[in-house]
Amino acid sequence: MIPKLQIALDNTELASALESVKSVGDIVDVIEVGTILYVAEGSEAVRKLRSLYPDKIILADIKAADAGSILAKICFEAGATWMTTICCSDINTMVSALDVAKKYDGDIQIELYGDWTFEHAKAWREAGLNQVVYHRSRDAQSAGKDWSEEDIIKVKKLCDMGFKVTVTGGLSVEHIKLFKGLPIYCFIAGRSIRDAKSPKDAALEFKAEFKKYWS
Amino acid sequence: MIPKLQIALDNTELASALESVKSVGDIVDVIEVGTILYVAEGSEAVRKLRSLYPDKIILADIKAADAGSILAKICFEAGATWMTTICCSDINTMVSALDVAKKYDGDIQIELYGDWTFEHAKAWREAGLNQVVYHRSRDAQSAGKDWSEEDIIKVKKLCDMGFKVTVTGGLSVEHIKLFKGLPIYCFIAGRSIRDAKSPKDAALEFKAEFKKYWS
Repeated sequence: MIPKLQIALDNTELASALESVKSVGDIVDVIEVGTILYVAEGSEAVRKLRSLYPDKIILADIKAADAGSILAKICFEAGATWMTTICCSDINTMVSALDVAKKYDGDIQIELYGDWTFEHAKAWREAGLNQVVYHRSRDAQSAGKDWSEEDIIKVKKLCDMGFKVTVTGGLSVEHIKLFKGLPIYCFIAGRSIRDAKSPKDAALEFKAEFKKYWS
Repeated sequence: MIPKLQIALDNTELASALESVKSVGDIVDVIEVGTILYVAEGSEAVRKLRSLYPDKIILADIKAADAGSILAKICFEAGATWMTTICCSDINTMVSALDVAKKYDGDIQIELYGDWTFEHAKAWREAGLNQVVYHRSRDAQSAGKDWSEEDIIKVKKLCDMGFKVTVTGGLSVEHIKLFKGLPIYCFIAGRSIRDAKSPKDAALEFKAEFKKYWS
């Protein structure tokens, strides 16, 4: 299956996020209300994007650490399709969020940061969680860490466990081929689309690259 | 020193949060814009509370997992005094958030969830982080876990390391004496104040209990 393309809207204002999404919203598969936009504008951002893109997958990237069911209710009521939880949250947080998600035909993604282990991942699978987001941290990037063989091995292992794996973290078109041969569910691009001279062309380039390796 | 009292506003709407804070805002030391309120309303909640309580400590409980400096800028610009990061974030996230916080005479708190270790805590201290929030997870509570001797030992160890420790998680007045003898920096009460017949009386009861054990 060809991976999905997700645009991360990490703008600090709703108006600029709407500007960013305008030329690529119809091309991408998933529109992400990034944590930054969420902290700035709250669930209003999801409501607005849902009204503009009724048929797209919309991700509420709130990285829930607790109070899973209440947070899920807020996000899914606002129109989200998926919501993220953080990997260090209690498994009850994830499961209670997932229970709410199912009522909305939605899903929960676990964001992998810090010292998570494959033992945790096994417990998540057993508890019915389906999606993980493999993340090269933005601040780790700033500290100069690039994608490594170690990253790829971990991503493969997560795929092998049956997770739908989304990959993100400073991804450019050149990075995509690193994941060739793996059943990646979704790639997230943020600045490499938003900051491109032509965001539309940048999005189409990602899609062409996916077709090259996953057809 | 007598511990501070923090009210957590975990309402799902700003209007109801403002109603909750009305009778206790002048009594408590710290007003927390909880994650739930943040996800619902974004930084507008901080702006509104800052305008109503210009002299109070206001906490933006966003549990930042990444993009520390950008998120800090949004929160402190809106009027927050403190902001939280999640313990599984990269240490660069915490440090970059702290750098921004300092520009606003603010501070960063690390929220302790999941499998953090004292090795992590040592690294945070060495990197200049001053505050941690010891948290009995809401969803762990629902699963029936009460405060234990193990919790108290961990809290003591964090105090001994030089952290200003905030304690939270389904705290009622009866729990306070469990922490007698420890230099707790701040206690957070949420529902036990908000849902009390008289929230004002409930807040004053907490304060009286603090005086009993920390004078």
